[in-house]
Amino acid sequence: MAQLLSSSCSLTTSSSNKAYLKPFNQCSTAFSISVACKTSRSPFRRLFSHDQKPKRRTVVRATAISTSQEAPSQTSSGSLENSGGSSKPQRVMVIGGDGYCGWATSLHLSNMGYEVAIVDNLVRRHFDHQLGLDSLTPISSIHNRIRCWKSLTGKSIELYIGDICDFGFLSEAFQSFEPDAVVHFGEQRSAPYSMIDRSRAVFTQQNNVIGTLNVLFAIKEFREQCHLVKLGTMGEYGTPNIDIEEGYITITHNGRTDTLPYPKQASSFYHLSKVHDSHNIAFTCKAWGIRATDLNQGVVYGVKTPETEMHEELHNRFDYDGVFGTALNRFCVQAAVGHPLTVYGKGGQTRGYLDIRDTVQCVEIAIANPAKPGEFRVFNQFTEQFSVNELAALVTKAGKKLGLDVQTVSVPNPRVEAEEHYYNAKHTKLIELGLKPHLLSDSLLDSLLHFTIKYKDRVDTKQIMPSVSWKKIGVKTKTVTA
Amino acid sequence: MAQLLSSSCSLTTSSSNKAYLKPFNQCSTAFSISVACKTSRSPFRRLFSHDQKPKRRTVVRATAISTSQEAPSQTSSGSLENSGGSSKPQRVMVIGGDGYCGWATSLHLSNMGYEVAIVDNLVRRHFDHQLGLDSLTPISSIHNRIRCWKSLTGKSIELYIGDICDFGFLSEAFQSFEPDAVVHFGEQRSAPYSMIDRSRAVFTQQNNVIGTLNVLFAIKEFREQCHLVKLGTMGEYGTPNIDIEEGYITITHNGRTDTLPYPKQASSFYHLSKVHDSHNIAFTCKAWGIRATDLNQGVVYGVKTPETEMHEELHNRFDYDGVFGTALNRFCVQAAVGHPLTVYGKGGQTRGYLDIRDTVQCVEIAIANPAKPGEFRVFNQFTEQFSVNELAALVTKAGKKLGLDVQTVSVPNPRVEAEEHYYNAKHTKLIELGLKPHLLSDSLLDSLLHFTIKYKDRVDTKQIMPSVSWKKIGVKTKTVTA
Repeated sequence: MAQLLSSSCSLTTSSSNKAYLKPFNQCSTAFSISVACKTSRSPFRRLFSHDQKPKRRTVVRATAISTSQEAPSQTSSGSLENSGGSSKPQRVMVIGGDGYCGWATSLHLSNMGYEVAIVDNLVRRHFDHQLGLDSLTPISSIHNRIRCWKSLTGKSIELYIGDICDFGFLSEAFQSFEPDAVVHFGEQRSAPYSMIDRSRAVFTQQNNVIGTLNVLFAIKEFREQCHLVKLGTMGEYGTPNIDIEEGYITITHNGRTDTLPYPKQASSFYHLSKVHDSHNIAFTCKAWGIRATDLNQGVVYGVKTPETEMHEELHNRFDYDGVFGTALNRFCVQAAVGHPLTVYGKGGQTRGYLDIRDTVQCVEIAIANPAKPGEFRVFNQFTEQFSVNELAALVTKAGKKLGLDVQTVSVPNPRVEAEEHYYNAKHTKLIELGLKPHLLSDSLLDSLLHFTIKYKDRVDTKQIMPSVSWKKIGVKTKTVTA
Repeated sequence: MAQLLSSSCSLTTSSSNKAYLKPFNQCSTAFSISVACKTSRSPFRRLFSHDQKPKRRTVVRATAISTSQEAPSQTSSGSLENSGGSSKPQRVMVIGGDGYCGWATSLHLSNMGYEVAIVDNLVRRHFDHQLGLDSLTPISSIHNRIRCWKSLTGKSIELYIGDICDFGFLSEAFQSFEPDAVVHFGEQRSAPYSMIDRSRAVFTQQNNVIGTLNVLFAIKEFREQCHLVKLGTMGEYGTPNIDIEEGYITITHNGRTDTLPYPKQASSFYHLSKVHDSHNIAFTCKAWGIRATDLNQGVVYGVKTPETEMHEELHNRFDYDGVFGTALNRFCVQAAVGHPLTVYGKGGQTRGYLDIRDTVQCVEIAIANPAKPGEFRVFNQFTEQFSVNELAALVTKAGKKLGLDVQTVSVPNPRVEAEEHYYNAKHTKLIELGLKPHLLSDSLLDSLLHFTIKYKDRVDTKQIMPSVSWKKIGVKTKTVTA
């Protein structure tokens, strides 16, 4: 299945080393795409930005040039390399850099002076096509996004289009880019998606677990000192009746004491895939000396970061549907279009939440303060806890200020989860490293509601209700109703 | 990779519904193999043993007939169906029933009056071919094994040859056999194998995790009341500095208490695959009401069970090589051929051990006392704890009694593991259900040593030393030295 979804770049032809030089008019400038060449004899070798190694066909670098130029100059491409004086900037590979968190993170890191490469198979866009879904916001192609960023800031982002489950591709990307840190967002990240049918459940675990194994092997083989920053989820812990610690818990039992991995109780095949990843990564830290940070992230809300706001072509995706949409973002869309807020079951489900501006901040903090060789470090990445009912009340109140008539309905819970439970999760380690949280405020809710109202004509209300049942999942491949 | 290894039955031709009626002379009688037919119009429909459903080509049933018969009679096939009077015997599917534990278990269950079907892709035999290894004992083909069993006891064992990672195959087997219990041994079960190279690591996790997911989906879809008896491993727990409980631990933390899954610290990609399975199964018990028993088995030793001793063609495999061989069995082979006992590192590694006669007993006990719907039950399946040094001392002492000069050497530990540690694991639940352990005794060691001496001419001493290093595993596919 992973093979099936392995994309080769649509801009690359199979037998040629052509450079595409068609001018565009988006984002105030025109662009060229330089297709990296297979052999060092190619006349386009001079287009390579930071080294002189030949690249595979799958490696596409999108580079902006001014309308007056035929090709980027040596000095403009790769200009970041010596930006900090004698010390080179850190090189960060963002796997899944075309997704919701990945795109915002890639721009933030690039803006902070890191050399960034995005590795993505673009399968998230493919899921939308297959399921008949779409982002609330129109989003540009990854190629146009990167060109626009270059045009606006002069900063290059490298692009490797391919599937990390294909180890040949991943090896090439690693050996070509030589990352100092890998941020790994590149997984199927929806719990409902993983519960649609057997083949999606299997795909989720296979894709996520094998992709991460390949990243671990690539680090061991090619970049032993590279720091893995892996996106986990708070959902790995479930909802235990005791406080949730950050990754480990010290247990005294029958008079003896040890600090052990915090017990995991995930509640979907997606969440389970992250549990599997955490165990695999912990083992390789111990056995091979891998340095890794597992960011057990809460539910992300919001859409704007300073970088994505710089131009329409940089806008981030915004999911509100029953498969990829998450609670607060979905509620804002529902409020905007006059759809009742859909609380699943009793609404007492409590989780950790964070603003997407804090996601990008946390990842940068993790990179800037790397784990030690052999260390498997776990941070709980969220800033506040809310129950679903509390979120609904906040959106109702914010909506009223804008003159919206916001109703709330309880719908049968499609998931299997406790609807009333104790929840108290620690989240101090990132704060200690310098995180300045953007707490959920009236002004953010205002801004989010205005944002959703702006795009409300794009809302497909048929996609709002939950369409996937944890109990009814079957073995036949299912087409989600359009 | 799973697809690559998916075997179709070598006895089946692609386009015909032929029955093979060539007489054999092994095991005192002659045999016919009835190939189950694709359509109900087949003249061989009458050969089906327990129902009248048509079978797929992949389903092969090996059935014994006396030399005077042309085909088995209706009464002899399926004769167990009413053996208990009005109540039908339980139908048990043994996945991996051609392996070391699986074969002994299949015969034991059949002997106890269960209706048994073996599901196996025979990949364990394939691993031997690929790695240049062989069982100490000559073993018959699965077809001959089953024919011999039928001939000796009159009991039929059904055979489904195929890969459970192929859900189409597994569905057919489930719908055809309609199991009341599934015993799942059908995984890549060697820690060193999973640490040979990247492709074997990936294969192990993919094969084991996806196979088990498929079994869970098959139960949900086709046999909701079917009890899953899954072979886990004591290695899931690692070596914590506190007592190991059976699956769960009650933790009091910051004044609150909960009973949670026992923390997992596995130390190979194989052991990790079992950790992943346990989490996946626990979730489906909760979400779908699956009834499951996870048997966290210790290291199995011995080779004889009453059933495998009935005839040479029923003999079990016996692994002594560095990849599939485990401590005690390997030591007995080393003693037999005058090779020093190879203790890895300091030899303080302590684990739970059990006699293979207890493996088969434990599985039967689990089946006879099933988990409740929705229950995820964990039993620690071992009877005694030993350190590697203690085992070496026992074998040395037993060898001396037989006049063998047994030496012990410490070899560099190829694994990453603590060599001196606390270890105290509970194992009371199976005892409470009636397990009568065969503790490791002088007479058992005597018998094992005699057994290995009997076959010592078959020992390939080049296979004894560890050939796989936890730290040196690389991305290139490795051929283990012949």
